[in-house]
Amino acid sequence: MEEETLVTSSDIRDLVEAGDLDGAAARLAAVHPADGADVLVHVDRDARVALIDRVPREPMARIIEYLPDERRPEILEDIEPGALAELLDEIDDDIVADILHQFPAQRAAQILGSMKRAAAVAPLLRHADETAGGHMTRAFISLHGDWSVDRAIQYLRRVRPDADTAYYLYVVDHIGRLEGIVSLRDLIIAPPDARLSDIMSHEVVSARDDMDQEQMARLVQRYDLVAVPVVDADNRLVGVITVDDVLDVVEEEATEDIYKLAGIGVKARALSPLTDSLRRRLPWLAVNGAVALIAAFVVSRFESTIAQVAALAVFMPVIAGQGGNAGVQTATIIVRALALEEINLRDIFRVLGKEIALGVVKGVLFGSALGVIAYLWQGNGTFAIIVASAMFLNMIVASLSGVLVPMTLRYVFKLDPATAAGVFDTMITDIMGFFIFLGLATLMLDRLQ
Amino acid sequence: MEEETLVTSSDIRDLVEAGDLDGAAARLAAVHPADGADVLVHVDRDARVALIDRVPREPMARIIEYLPDERRPEILEDIEPGALAELLDEIDDDIVADILHQFPAQRAAQILGSMKRAAAVAPLLRHADETAGGHMTRAFISLHGDWSVDRAIQYLRRVRPDADTAYYLYVVDHIGRLEGIVSLRDLIIAPPDARLSDIMSHEVVSARDDMDQEQMARLVQRYDLVAVPVVDADNRLVGVITVDDVLDVVEEEATEDIYKLAGIGVKARALSPLTDSLRRRLPWLAVNGAVALIAAFVVSRFESTIAQVAALAVFMPVIAGQGGNAGVQTATIIVRALALEEINLRDIFRVLGKEIALGVVKGVLFGSALGVIAYLWQGNGTFAIIVASAMFLNMIVASLSGVLVPMTLRYVFKLDPATAAGVFDTMITDIMGFFIFLGLATLMLDRLQ
Repeated sequence: MEEETLVTSSDIRDLVEAGDLDGAAARLAAVHPADGADVLVHVDRDARVALIDRVPREPMARIIEYLPDERRPEILEDIEPGALAELLDEIDDDIVADILHQFPAQRAAQILGSMKRAAAVAPLLRHADETAGGHMTRAFISLHGDWSVDRAIQYLRRVRPDADTAYYLYVVDHIGRLEGIVSLRDLIIAPPDARLSDIMSHEVVSARDDMDQEQMARLVQRYDLVAVPVVDADNRLVGVITVDDVLDVVEEEATEDIYKLAGIGVKARALSPLTDSLRRRLPWLAVNGAVALIAAFVVSRFESTIAQVAALAVFMPVIAGQGGNAGVQTATIIVRALALEEINLRDIFRVLGKEIALGVVKGVLFGSALGVIAYLWQGNGTFAIIVASAMFLNMIVASLSGVLVPMTLRYVFKLDPATAAGVFDTMITDIMGFFIFLGLATLMLDRLQ
Repeated sequence: MEEETLVTSSDIRDLVEAGDLDGAAARLAAVHPADGADVLVHVDRDARVALIDRVPREPMARIIEYLPDERRPEILEDIEPGALAELLDEIDDDIVADILHQFPAQRAAQILGSMKRAAAVAPLLRHADETAGGHMTRAFISLHGDWSVDRAIQYLRRVRPDADTAYYLYVVDHIGRLEGIVSLRDLIIAPPDARLSDIMSHEVVSARDDMDQEQMARLVQRYDLVAVPVVDADNRLVGVITVDDVLDVVEEEATEDIYKLAGIGVKARALSPLTDSLRRRLPWLAVNGAVALIAAFVVSRFESTIAQVAALAVFMPVIAGQGGNAGVQTATIIVRALALEEINLRDIFRVLGKEIALGVVKGVLFGSALGVIAYLWQGNGTFAIIVASAMFLNMIVASLSGVLVPMTLRYVFKLDPATAAGVFDTMITDIMGFFIFLGLATLMLDRLQ
């Protein structure tokens, strides 16, 4: 199946490259919009503008719905506001809100002003993009608890709700406060004269509209939901989030974690424009450079030791590098466990104890191995012991920093624990590794020559 | 809401720590099973055994359903096979299959033999754990296309299907081949005398039972599905995957990507036992160590140069480290883009061109900055030019290796592109960085003293 869809979008790209834009546009309008979106993401700008121009409004609107969030602003940039407003009028309101959030305020206002459905979309724009409110749709069905099952079914037949939001009916009181939910399955198997309040489930998991999207995703995942109702501060039902949006959030948050660990701005993508990529990668690279200079400064304090025993320079990168790697491994596991809420502050001593124990084992293993290699290579026992001790100690440093850096970022600075945790850990193991190794060598210098 | 649930599980942990196991067990049986699972994950083994013993079978079975996959074997280990079989008889068959997959074959067979529902679960065990077949449930509703809507509704009222699998009805022919799907929403709004074949959707996205779970998850995500039917090689419907399983897969695959980049075994977790963690982290750490020795060997070739100009040792870690960081940034973006199918082999030259351009910009920026610093620090123009050139060239190396390492892992070796991409990239930038820097210094040695 997946193979087939890749073939579909590849076919259309072939047509584009052969210059047959009309043929490509005709196929684009006919295939599944997810495949159409895939094509628009991959062709170059000129071809994209030409294709968007040729695809009729209805299929084009579907394709826009399936475009990846972070590429939409760039892809929609070339459509003039009036035409874009007409397209957006055909699109689910939560996606329209997403799109308008990403545009500069002036352009967003201009487009919203030209939309027929401006009144439905405008309330969604009050919510920040990365909150539950920013992901919800207002196309939900809410009914009163004193309605009968039969009346509810007649109502559904009349309004014919959207296929992708109708898994549940929401029962609300006279001022719109959420009281319970009824799944379509419950509705079908209930006696026609039962009241909704009798068959509804009272145990409703809901999200507040200002809840962070990561928390919201964790809620859906924790309780295995298919849709989650969104309520305001007064428990009034204001929208519904469907699980397909949650899937996107989970993936987006995972990507963010991965990127942050490597010190990359979160919206970076392989195919995004060059200046964008620079802006997203340079800052942490500059921090890393500054940090490397601190490490260089530490090394420079020991220049005369190195001048006398140049073999130290041979083992410096091994001790620092191995420590850095172990630290990043530990930090990665801690960051992920914090993100998935597998651990919290309460577990710090348990986790720290485990990682230090691991550090001792790794330190003994790699320390003694490296000591043996150093002895065979340089034939100096003191040199070998210094190498082994520095390797051992840097492994303990790696365990400590691997746990404490993400925990400190999270619980002291209230930041995302992934924030450049890799950069900080490498910094600590580099600096401490050089200091321990060259420091020990300087203390024992007379035995090394 | 999330805060509340954390409070719930924290409360119960307080009771456990206060020694009130009966009180804790009573609350455990009463709270949402997701919260109960959270408690079992966090308490120590003795308390866990005592709690499992005290919670009645029905709520205990629900809690087991919500335990995180990778912690289940360890948590269920202490339950004797007969009691475990009774618990598993109450659990969704796809989860039972998951659990049995994770046990040693002999224990799995023993438990399956004691289960009443062995016949329903056994067929699922044929499928590998990480395929669509390994995630599907067999609790789906399939009907024939010539049934009327009314007859289908009567049927649903009689069988009262599980709430969490009943979003769609699947229409099959006389030998069980999938012909179409009908959502409950379609069923409710259709005229009672319509035939299912008239109202069903023919455009069915399905997964083959042997499809890899990552591909399957991508399918669900690409087409925004809530449940995906699973078919065998003859297009016969054999199961259904619900989106909550897909969410778990997306998260699991993201975690795998993160871990692989850092060179960690994929099932590692912050709270998993020590020996487990060692087994999962040592291999790549050992590879990293071996690689570091290659870098050390390169440095050792230039020992006499370093003995004469010890300041080289000061700038070595900056040039290698900055290159490593830039390489990991690039590799991370490429790995994620490959995983999310944002790019494929077809895009290689476009991506490579962009990354080289980025490398030139970064090389000029950091090369000239580091050159100026080197000049101010050492007061030697030739030294400064060597530092700047080495930094510039290593940035280009980082761009090349950042793109080519994951691409090679994927398209030449057919491996997951994340497989230790970070380790390989650091290796290449370390070795090349040292070689370029110390090589240039050796060529110009007479101007450095």
